Amino acid sequence: MTTLNETHDPALRSWVESANAADTEFPIQNLPLAVFRRRGSNEAFGGGVAIGEQIVDLTAAVARGVFGSDAARPAQAAAGDSLNPLMALGPAAWSALRQSLSRALREGASAQKLLEPCLVAQADAEYMLPARIGDYTDFYTGIHHATTVGKLFRPDNPLLPNYKWVPIGYHGRASSIVVSGTPVRRPLGQTKGSADTPRFGPSQRLDYELELGFLIGRGNPLGEPIPIEEAEQHLFGVALFNDWSARDIQPWEYVPLGPFLSKNFGSTLSPWVVTTEALAPFRAPLARPADDPDPLPYLNAAQDRAQGALDIELEVWLQTAAMREAGRAAVRLTRGNAREAAYWTPAQLIAHHSSGGCNLQPGDLFGSGTLSGPGPDQAGSLLELTQGGKQPITLPNGETRSFLADGDTLTLRGYCERAGARRIGFGVCSATVLPAPAVRV
Amino acid sequence: MTTLNETHDPALRSWVESANAADTEFPIQNLPLAVFRRRGSNEAFGGGVAIGEQIVDLTAAVARGVFGSDAARPAQAAAGDSLNPLMALGPAAWSALRQSLSRALREGASAQKLLEPCLVAQADAEYMLPARIGDYTDFYTGIHHATTVGKLFRPDNPLLPNYKWVPIGYHGRASSIVVSGTPVRRPLGQTKGSADTPRFGPSQRLDYELELGFLIGRGNPLGEPIPIEEAEQHLFGVALFNDWSARDIQPWEYVPLGPFLSKNFGSTLSPWVVTTEALAPFRAPLARPADDPDPLPYLNAAQDRAQGALDIELEVWLQTAAMREAGRAAVRLTRGNAREAAYWTPAQLIAHHSSGGCNLQPGDLFGSGTLSGPGPDQAGSLLELTQGGKQPITLPNGETRSFLADGDTLTLRGYCERAGARRIGFGVCSATVLPAPAVRV
Repeated sequence: MTTLNETHDPALRSWVESANAADTEFPIQNLPLAVFRRRGSNEAFGGGVAIGEQIVDLTAAVARGVFGSDAARPAQAAAGDSLNPLMALGPAAWSALRQSLSRALREGASAQKLLEPCLVAQADAEYMLPARIGDYTDFYTGIHHATTVGKLFRPDNPLLPNYKWVPIGYHGRASSIVVSGTPVRRPLGQTKGSADTPRFGPSQRLDYELELGFLIGRGNPLGEPIPIEEAEQHLFGVALFNDWSARDIQPWEYVPLGPFLSKNFGSTLSPWVVTTEALAPFRAPLARPADDPDPLPYLNAAQDRAQGALDIELEVWLQTAAMREAGRAAVRLTRGNAREAAYWTPAQLIAHHSSGGCNLQPGDLFGSGTLSGPGPDQAGSLLELTQGGKQPITLPNGETRSFLADGDTLTLRGYCERAGARRIGFGVCSATVLPAPAVRV
Repeated sequence: MTTLNETHDPALRSWVESANAADTEFPIQNLPLAVFRRRGSNEAFGGGVAIGEQIVDLTAAVARGVFGSDAARPAQAAAGDSLNPLMALGPAAWSALRQSLSRALREGASAQKLLEPCLVAQADAEYMLPARIGDYTDFYTGIHHATTVGKLFRPDNPLLPNYKWVPIGYHGRASSIVVSGTPVRRPLGQTKGSADTPRFGPSQRLDYELELGFLIGRGNPLGEPIPIEEAEQHLFGVALFNDWSARDIQPWEYVPLGPFLSKNFGSTLSPWVVTTEALAPFRAPLARPADDPDPLPYLNAAQDRAQGALDIELEVWLQTAAMREAGRAAVRLTRGNAREAAYWTPAQLIAHHSSGGCNLQPGDLFGSGTLSGPGPDQAGSLLELTQGGKQPITLPNGETRSFLADGDTLTLRGYCERAGARRIGFGVCSATVLPAPAVRV
């Protein structure tokens, strides 16, 4: 794990005044990265770092010679239209860039004059995905989610025997991952009700899944597993991730080879990647009950057991079309914490994924799986909140939802707060549901 | 479907003499594409077209001005280190390139002098993957395979109720797909025998899967399904594909989300892609029994029913280390035909994959799933040939195999032959099994 250093000091303040506001998600202790440009412009997309309500344009900062020798290379690597080249450089380079930015953005920094012209207001920005995602894997680390959903599908056998041994995961579709703000179209698909023959049409049970997205930094060669002790050095950072799911397509298609079209019509990633180093003050022991089996040695490292988990508060917000038209704000559906929800750490996922020799690459994305807490109001999907659609929730304006309706805007939020540390946040992961395309007859 | 044209004329002969041999897989009627360079050189990889025992170096041919107006653009697009730019151009461009090459390589062609210096012997070539594979999906179209394997896993319920309605597929790992000739390392992994706790170590049940690989040409925008009538226009071509599988890792990890590490340690693709147009003489009616349900409308098109299937003979060959050392040739384990094995056509796979809105991209790879024929000697995996390892096969030199041993070289071959058409082949898809890495304790 990354240790605490000067960049985590909660007393640090920035000459960017909005970064010092008590409620900012992007104080100088955070410094997450994204790929952005001025909205509506024809500029090339490039890397940026959030500071308060502003973005440091790394391309401009490199051109103005802001970065010293150690930070110049990673800053240059982050200046293109994806963070993959930066991700490939590894933790020492990421740390050098963070330290350099932290120093340049501090109150009284001599770099202020150089950097000021490199700021772009977040209000004026549009984003791309932060990485070219070569491969995307979705895990299933949310043990409360797995148990609750298991009860719906298999009442007698909710948590399968492999769950506490194998970090269950499956390969997902990379091409249909889009950045927050991109609308998601309701999918058509085959569903099988009680009729003899399946029907094909718009999904009637469209759902979200509250997940974290883990972005891989350096990869490993094919055939060379990553030891658990080194695994976290391959974790570049963490973002918010919504794994939209069609709950009526899924049960009909998923045996025996797993979810497919019920998932691959779209997934939404937040633009900002909070680096592993920024998360150093918010690590926690693995929440594995004492009477559960020890992880096998290839998944078991003392430091990971002690502080491998992530203490991240997570929220889900819904604004329906009617609420938007009436000027009503979004309503919170869920509030939970990743630490309580996840049975496996990111390091365990990395070690497991590569244990058979599979090669990870910079920019690969792991989904955590749905991070539902132990309580019923901590559920990370409507499937759980409405008990499979049987108990619709009622919203403050009187509308009800079993699953998502067209026009609904679903937003994930996340933040970390702890005594002795500056609060940091993840921004938003948000999208609006569009109607399904017409069925061709 | 592509119709027959002058390039399919079985009477055509080439000025490249080896292309006229009766047993060549690469006559002038084939013209498959690969990405290659001279072995051991530091040249850039570039596109090439097989003709007899030679390769037309497209980069050189473009530089020498071999191609006329219609073919120059696709030839240029194929000259780089992947065929993706060519794939993105679509069927008219692919066809223009094929026609131009066919004319330039014919006996008596005036282009002979220009093209001769562009030939590289296949014996002197090394290959890359033909495409940058953005996403890889493995289907499960082999109904005899699904039934036989289903019996091993679920004796009472071999073929699941969705099989004849849904073209079952799952997302696979793109990063670990390697080109034929690259060794494949036996994976480590968790397995669960009869003991209370799982073990972690080298797979003891390493297997191959005989598949076809379908390479996507033009893609579709996210949210816009491809109609079945247009689906085959998105199919660039077909290659041989070995989906290596660890049969002892698979049963322990695969519920409820499907195969993962049992598959993602490596997959092997042949270097040569036989284009959809070259396969036009070898199409066949869909082998769907008359009393099976009709496909749903989004998977049902008259032309696809009539000639959507592929009449491709497929073979699996094994050479063990002992055989190699004794100078013994490989032995054939299996011979079958894709037409008899596959329940769904490539067009149905494309229509289904995109039916929920998932965007396909140039260079995406679909695996057909294991193409086992109806007979026991037509099985496309050792799992089937040895009935789950219970009945080892005996090789001519007295060795036995339940599953693959280190040092085994497994080779897939494929070819098409029909009265009235020139026989064409796929080359080889071959790899040798390396021992597993050491388990770290």
